Amino acid sequence: MWVKDRLAAYAALTADYLRDRFGRRLREAGTPETLIAPMEYSLLGGGKRLRPALCLAFAELHGLPPGKVLPFAAAFELIHTYSLIHDDLPAMDDDDLRRGRPSCHKAYGEAQAILAGDALLTEAFGVMAETAPAVPEKAVLTALAEAAFAAGSAGMVGGQMLDMDYTGASGVSLAQVAAMQAKKTGALIRAACVCGAILAECAPQDVDRAALYGQSLGAAFQIADDILDVVGDETAIGKPVGSDQAMGKNTFPSLAGLPQSREMALAEADTAVRAVADHDGEAARFLRELARYVVDRVS
Amino acid sequence: MWVKDRLAAYAALTADYLRDRFGRRLREAGTPETLIAPMEYSLLGGGKRLRPALCLAFAELHGLPPGKVLPFAAAFELIHTYSLIHDDLPAMDDDDLRRGRPSCHKAYGEAQAILAGDALLTEAFGVMAETAPAVPEKAVLTALAEAAFAAGSAGMVGGQMLDMDYTGASGVSLAQVAAMQAKKTGALIRAACVCGAILAECAPQDVDRAALYGQSLGAAFQIADDILDVVGDETAIGKPVGSDQAMGKNTFPSLAGLPQSREMALAEADTAVRAVADHDGEAARFLRELARYVVDRVS
Repeated sequence: MWVKDRLAAYAALTADYLRDRFGRRLREAGTPETLIAPMEYSLLGGGKRLRPALCLAFAELHGLPPGKVLPFAAAFELIHTYSLIHDDLPAMDDDDLRRGRPSCHKAYGEAQAILAGDALLTEAFGVMAETAPAVPEKAVLTALAEAAFAAGSAGMVGGQMLDMDYTGASGVSLAQVAAMQAKKTGALIRAACVCGAILAECAPQDVDRAALYGQSLGAAFQIADDILDVVGDETAIGKPVGSDQAMGKNTFPSLAGLPQSREMALAEADTAVRAVADHDGEAARFLRELARYVVDRVS
Repeated sequence: MWVKDRLAAYAALTADYLRDRFGRRLREAGTPETLIAPMEYSLLGGGKRLRPALCLAFAELHGLPPGKVLPFAAAFELIHTYSLIHDDLPAMDDDDLRRGRPSCHKAYGEAQAILAGDALLTEAFGVMAETAPAVPEKAVLTALAEAAFAAGSAGMVGGQMLDMDYTGASGVSLAQVAAMQAKKTGALIRAACVCGAILAECAPQDVDRAALYGQSLGAAFQIADDILDVVGDETAIGKPVGSDQAMGKNTFPSLAGLPQSREMALAEADTAVRAVADHDGEAARFLRELARYVVDRVS
């Protein structure tokens, strides 16, 4: 399947960067081995590397080759990985499993997991800053500010806070869940797309289209994820089925039902496809087929 | 006392920024109130605002007015505050008190404390990025990379990891403790100085002098802190005396004794003073007197 191969090719670029250049960076800087171990355990333990792929594809769509943007793209995986480590902590979602293996704090203990997350988040911004001068400083700073906003208190971290607030709460509306998910998962996916476009120094209306693609894909992805938590295969999703319900999470399926959730996911995917309809080439094809692929898993 | 007044004046600038502009920034972005509360509890709960003062003073020393560098300087306080919140967590140093009040997780719970720390760290880089274009993009990116390195896996977070590794361990040498402290406390203090100089676009040798000042002041400060943990006044230091020993921490006093620790602190302060000896003006006077003041507390 072409889109899966293409996603795997982007993922291989990212994984190579993380294992080789980022690993060397950590060691040459004098990072303690007791910190490198939990960082690499979580970072190199698989994953689709979706966010870097989006950043690379949007840069490519606007003429910037992957080599110039790879560190910045990989920084999204550093941020995503830190968020998974912290979300799994006992004080948060208390998940023992992640991608079919013990979560970071189960493997290394809580202190090391907290610090590994802190370190991955911090390194992400260092890596981003070093995208210059291969990419002009102004574009790098604009993209970095966008990434920080998306990952920060009004984005991903704020979304996780709302998720905790809403868990087990009654009277939470579908609109509230949608807004929470737009922060928790959507903001970083959107930023990966937007930053690819910004780093390629494309026109403002193209940055807007990248944003529209990203937020629609993010919503489609999250609704599909919620659906898979109800009807999915434990081996495929790497965690127990029904864990959202067991934790009292308010999700799209729990509030709108499965059929309507599927409709919403399909509508979001359509919007994403339309946002990049005007482009030719392999990056555009990838982005369109990816949006279809995300919802094909649940339709 | 002139140096205390001057430090208080810098601290007031920083506190105003954090309370007004940063607070407004959080609210306008749509940060959940449940996240703003623990962020502001820790951020606005006092503190000397030492790191921002160093950044402001080094910028001023090289001709850049505080107004242009204040957001970047305040970002060091965001990073410092996040590190205190995470260090106090039960899985880490398990401190119930901070600056004479309940620590963040005692006041808000662990999940909110972890997320407040994550958010403060992330926002710090967003704030730094927005120092441009008042300061040229290239200088901002160079300074941001410096700050990320200092706060990251080979700097502050790595130092905290080593501190945990060494706590209760036997056979830890004075050189190991010094290297650990240089990462845990020294790196961010050094970076605050270096970034002030970089943002003012001063000559490379002046950046080197800022680094020398910062690392010497950081060492003097940390040794003095260790000494105060043994002989200090609980009200003044805001936590119980003897807590290092109670936790089995290897410190300068525990490994070298009090008299030799005092000698080392004085020698570091002398180095710091010499690093800025060639400059005139109030910023230079502040930096020299600050180095003396840090060790006056223990001599």
